[in-house]
Amino acid sequence: MNTTSSLFEKHDNIVNSALTALHTRSYFTPYPENPKAYSEDGDSKGKNFISSVMNNNFGELHQGNANAWIGEEISPYLQLGIGVKYPSYSIDTYISNAVEAQKNWSKIPVKQRAGILIEALDRIKTRFFDITYATMHTTGQSYMMSFQASGPHSNDRALESIITGLEELTKYVAEAEWVKPMGKFDLKLKKNWKAMPKGVGLVIGCSTFPIWNTVPALFANLITGNVSIVKPHPKAILPIAIVISELQKVFIENDIDACTVQLAPDTLDNPITKLLAEHQSVKLVDYTGGSEFGNYIESLNKTVFTEKAGVNSIIIDSVVDLKTVMSNIAFSASLYSGQMCTAPQNIFIPANGINTNEGLISFDDTLLALCGAINSLVDNPKAGAPTLGAIQSEVTLKRVKHLGELGGNVVLESKSIVNEEFKDARIATPAVIVMDESDYNLYNKECFGPIVFVIKTSSTESSIALAKKLSFEKGAITCGAYTTDKKTMQTIEDEMNEAYTPVSFNFTGAAFINSHAAFSDFHVTGGNPAGNASLTTSEFIVKRFVWVGNRFA
Amino acid sequence: MNTTSSLFEKHDNIVNSALTALHTRSYFTPYPENPKAYSEDGDSKGKNFISSVMNNNFGELHQGNANAWIGEEISPYLQLGIGVKYPSYSIDTYISNAVEAQKNWSKIPVKQRAGILIEALDRIKTRFFDITYATMHTTGQSYMMSFQASGPHSNDRALESIITGLEELTKYVAEAEWVKPMGKFDLKLKKNWKAMPKGVGLVIGCSTFPIWNTVPALFANLITGNVSIVKPHPKAILPIAIVISELQKVFIENDIDACTVQLAPDTLDNPITKLLAEHQSVKLVDYTGGSEFGNYIESLNKTVFTEKAGVNSIIIDSVVDLKTVMSNIAFSASLYSGQMCTAPQNIFIPANGINTNEGLISFDDTLLALCGAINSLVDNPKAGAPTLGAIQSEVTLKRVKHLGELGGNVVLESKSIVNEEFKDARIATPAVIVMDESDYNLYNKECFGPIVFVIKTSSTESSIALAKKLSFEKGAITCGAYTTDKKTMQTIEDEMNEAYTPVSFNFTGAAFINSHAAFSDFHVTGGNPAGNASLTTSEFIVKRFVWVGNRFA
Repeated sequence: MNTTSSLFEKHDNIVNSALTALHTRSYFTPYPENPKAYSEDGDSKGKNFISSVMNNNFGELHQGNANAWIGEEISPYLQLGIGVKYPSYSIDTYISNAVEAQKNWSKIPVKQRAGILIEALDRIKTRFFDITYATMHTTGQSYMMSFQASGPHSNDRALESIITGLEELTKYVAEAEWVKPMGKFDLKLKKNWKAMPKGVGLVIGCSTFPIWNTVPALFANLITGNVSIVKPHPKAILPIAIVISELQKVFIENDIDACTVQLAPDTLDNPITKLLAEHQSVKLVDYTGGSEFGNYIESLNKTVFTEKAGVNSIIIDSVVDLKTVMSNIAFSASLYSGQMCTAPQNIFIPANGINTNEGLISFDDTLLALCGAINSLVDNPKAGAPTLGAIQSEVTLKRVKHLGELGGNVVLESKSIVNEEFKDARIATPAVIVMDESDYNLYNKECFGPIVFVIKTSSTESSIALAKKLSFEKGAITCGAYTTDKKTMQTIEDEMNEAYTPVSFNFTGAAFINSHAAFSDFHVTGGNPAGNASLTTSEFIVKRFVWVGNRFA
Repeated sequence: MNTTSSLFEKHDNIVNSALTALHTRSYFTPYPENPKAYSEDGDSKGKNFISSVMNNNFGELHQGNANAWIGEEISPYLQLGIGVKYPSYSIDTYISNAVEAQKNWSKIPVKQRAGILIEALDRIKTRFFDITYATMHTTGQSYMMSFQASGPHSNDRALESIITGLEELTKYVAEAEWVKPMGKFDLKLKKNWKAMPKGVGLVIGCSTFPIWNTVPALFANLITGNVSIVKPHPKAILPIAIVISELQKVFIENDIDACTVQLAPDTLDNPITKLLAEHQSVKLVDYTGGSEFGNYIESLNKTVFTEKAGVNSIIIDSVVDLKTVMSNIAFSASLYSGQMCTAPQNIFIPANGINTNEGLISFDDTLLALCGAINSLVDNPKAGAPTLGAIQSEVTLKRVKHLGELGGNVVLESKSIVNEEFKDARIATPAVIVMDESDYNLYNKECFGPIVFVIKTSSTESSIALAKKLSFEKGAITCGAYTTDKKTMQTIEDEMNEAYTPVSFNFTGAAFINSHAAFSDFHVTGGNPAGNASLTTSEFIVKRFVWVGNRFA
C-alpha cells in the first residue's frame, strides 16, 4: 500500500485543475477528445482487440472461477452476435464478495482512494481504442462518437465524480479540539468526523451509453467508500467490462480486493437486476433506462439515482438565418440516429411562421427547411453514415418502420442509407411528423430513435407553455430555443427553468444541445420526471454516505 | 429593497466567522447562552409578555384576517390552559398565500436572503426572554433550558442553516464564458447556473423543542428560496409564533410578502398536518416527532426530512472514578426529565461489574451508584427542580406512573418533587428498571420521558453488540461510552459508527451527551431509523433546490 498515497501526489495537478474547473464551470479535460492526440498504433491495436475478443471469453476480470460464461451482444453494424462471453456468478457470490471487499475499501482514506481512482482513469485511457470498437459493436455509435463518448468524455465525468466526492469528504476537518468558554473554565472536547459509506452500490447500465452513463455513479460510489456491482445492459457489456478490468488491475496492484468493483452480466431471458436491487445488502442503486423500470427502482426503499425517459423540446420563435439553424437542428436530431437522451424530439413552430433576417418565413417553408437540412445531411456520403451510426435495437427500428402508428402527418419518411464500411448496418434516418398543438396525447411521450415531431402552435407563448407542461409531466433533459427577442428569451429561460429544464439558446455551428460537458453542464437536473439525480451535483455525492461525529472528554 | 443588500454587508463578520467555524467545526456563536449577557430588564419584560399574552389573541402575525382564533396550550408548570389564541385560515388560503409569496422570494439573490434572515435572528434575539417564558409554559422546560435551547442555541442552528445554504448556493460561479478549443477555432458559449427552489415547504414542529427542532428546516427552506408554512404541535405554538412574527416584521420592512413564512396552528381534534403535507403544492416536508407519523411522512412522494424516535444507549465498560461518571449520567437522564431526543435510555453494564481506579465494582454496586446519583440530584433543593423542569404531556406522565407495564425489575420508582415557584407543576423524577440482556423486546423501544433501563449483559462485547443492533433496528441519536481501555474504545467507535451512531466517550463534569452544538456536532446522522436527515449537513440543504444551467450561443 506504499504506492497508494503517492498516487494522490502523482495526480496532484489534475486534482487542482479539476477543482478549479468545477467551481468556475470552465472547460477542462486531461483526456483530449481527438483520437489523434493518442498513440499512433492505438487504432490498429483496438481493431486487433475487437477481433481477438469476438467469439471468445472476456478473460480480463479478476472475480474468481465463474459459474458460467454468458453473453448475447449483437453488433448493430454487422447485425451478428459478437460472441463475447463474460463470467457469471450467483447473486450470493456477488453480494458476499462485495461485503468482504467493503471492509477494506471503506477504511482507505479518501485521498488515497482518489489517487487510486485517477490512476485507473489513466489506465482506461490506454484502452480508449479498444473501448471505441467495443462501443461501436454494441451500441451502434459511430467511430468518432464511440471514441469521444465512451473514452475521454466518460473519463471526464468519472473524474468529475471523484473530484466532487473528494471535495465533499474533505470539506470539514477530520478532527479538532473543541473549546467552549464556560465562564470560570473552558469545556474542552476532542472530536472527529467520519464520512461513513452507505454500503454496496448497484449500478445498472443502459444499452446506448454503456460507459458514459455508468461511470459517474460507479466512481461516485467508489470515492465515497462504497463498493459497486455493475449490472450492464445485456446488449452492451463489453465497453464497461474493459473499464472494470482496468479498475480491478489497479486495485490488485495496490493490494486492494479486486471485487471492490464487480461486473454482473445477465441475459434478457435470465435477468438478475431485481434480484440484486432488492437484496438487503444493496444500499445504493443507480439506474439509466426506461421510465417504467426507473419508477420501480425509485419505489425501492433505498438511496436511488435515476435517469429515465424524457421529451426534449425545441422552441423556434425567430432566427437570424434559418438555414444555419435548421442545419444545427438536423444534426442534433440525426446524431446517433436520435438515440441520445439529449436528442431533440418535439420542435414547436408557430403556425404563422417565424421572423428571420430575410423576413417572415411561413410554417410550411420552415418545415421544408428542416426536412431539407435533414436530407442534405443524411444524403451527404461523407457525413450521413458517420453522423447516424447504427440503430442499437430492433425495437427502435420497428418504431421507425411503423410511423403511421404514432399519428400525425408524416412529411419525411425514415429511410436507410449505405454505410460503405458496414454494408449490413442497421440504419434509419430521421423521420419528420407534423402534429397540431392539440395532439398533446400523441407527442407527449418519448419516441426513442430518429423521430422528430414538428408541432404547429398558435403562438410562441403556446409553444413555451406546451414545452413547459411536457417537462413537468413527462420530463426533459434539455431544451433548445431560437429567438432574436430579448424579452422572449428571458421568458423561455424563466418558464423552462421553473420546470427544472435547462435551455440552450440560438445554437448554430459547432454548438449542439446534445452535448453536456463535464465540470460545466449538469446532466439531467433531477427536478422533473426525466430523473431524480443530476451529474454531478453535491447531492449526487452526499447521499452516498453519512456524517458521523465522535466526542472524547 | 435598498436596505436588503446592505443587510448582508451589515452581517459580514458573522458570515465569515460562521463559515470558518463550519469547516473547522469549532465553537462559535454570536448569541451568548448566558441570560446575563442580555439586557437587564429582559427577564421582567419577558414576564410581562407572558402575562399579557395569556388568555389573549396573539396579535403579532401579518397573515390577514383570520377565519377563526384557536389555541389549546397547557402550561406544564401551572397545569392550566394558557389561553393564547392564534389566527387560523383555510388550507387553500395558506397554500395560495405561499404560492404568491414564492414568486418574489425565490427571485431575491441568495446573499440578500442571507442578510434578511440574519437580521431576523437579531430581532429574535431581542425576544429571547419572551421566548423563554413561552417555552416554559408550553414544553415544561426549566427556565435556563428554555432560554438556552429556544434562544441562543436555536439561533445558532438557524444561522448554521443560513450559512450552509449560502455556501451551497454560491459554490459555483453564477455565470461564465465557456471556451472549448476545437482545433481551428474556439467554441464559445455563455452559461449561467441557477439554484431553483423546489417550492412550498411545510415544517412540522414537536411539543418539546418547538423552536430548536423547527428553525433549522425553516431557515434551510428560506435560504434556498422556498417559502414555508410552519405547523407547530398544538400544545407548543407560542414560542415559534414569536419567531415567525419577527421574521414577518423583517420581511415587511424589506417590502417582502409577510406570508413568505406562515404559522398554521391546529388543534388535536381538528388536525391539519396531513391536509397540508399531501397538498400538491407542498414540495418539502420537515418533521420532528413520533416514528409512526414520521414513517407516513417518509412515505409521501416528496422531499422529506425527518427526526423520529430512537433508543440512546450508554455502554459502561470501565471508568476512572465511578461517582463522577454516575453524576454525569444521572444529570443526562434527569435533564428535562428525559424528554430530550438525546437523553440516554438504555445503560448497558456487564454482569461481572466494571473496573475502576478503586478496583472492580460489582453490577449491583454500580446500579446502586446510579440510583444514588439520581436521588442526590433530584433531592437537592437547588438542583432538582431546575434540572427536571416539568413533564410536557399527560401521556408521558401516565407512562411513568405505570412502570410495571414495561417489564423488568423497578429498582428506583419515579416520584414527584416540589418546585417552590410552581407548586402545581407536573413533575416526575427518573425511574430505573433493571433488565436482562435477553429482554431485548422490552428495552428495544423508546420510552419517552424519565425512564432508564439498566441492562445486565454478559460482557462489554455483548453490550456493544446490543447497542449496535438497537441503533440499526430502532435508531439512535447519540450514544455514551465509558472505558479506560484504548482498544475497547476503538471497537465501540467502529461498531457504533457502522450503525451511523455518534459516540461520546468518558463524559464527566460539564460535558453531557445530550448537548449537540451547532457548527460542530451534527444532530441525528440520518443513517439509522431515528431519522433520515442530519443537522446540518450539505444534504439537508441541497435536496431543497435544483441546479439548472442555461447556455447562450
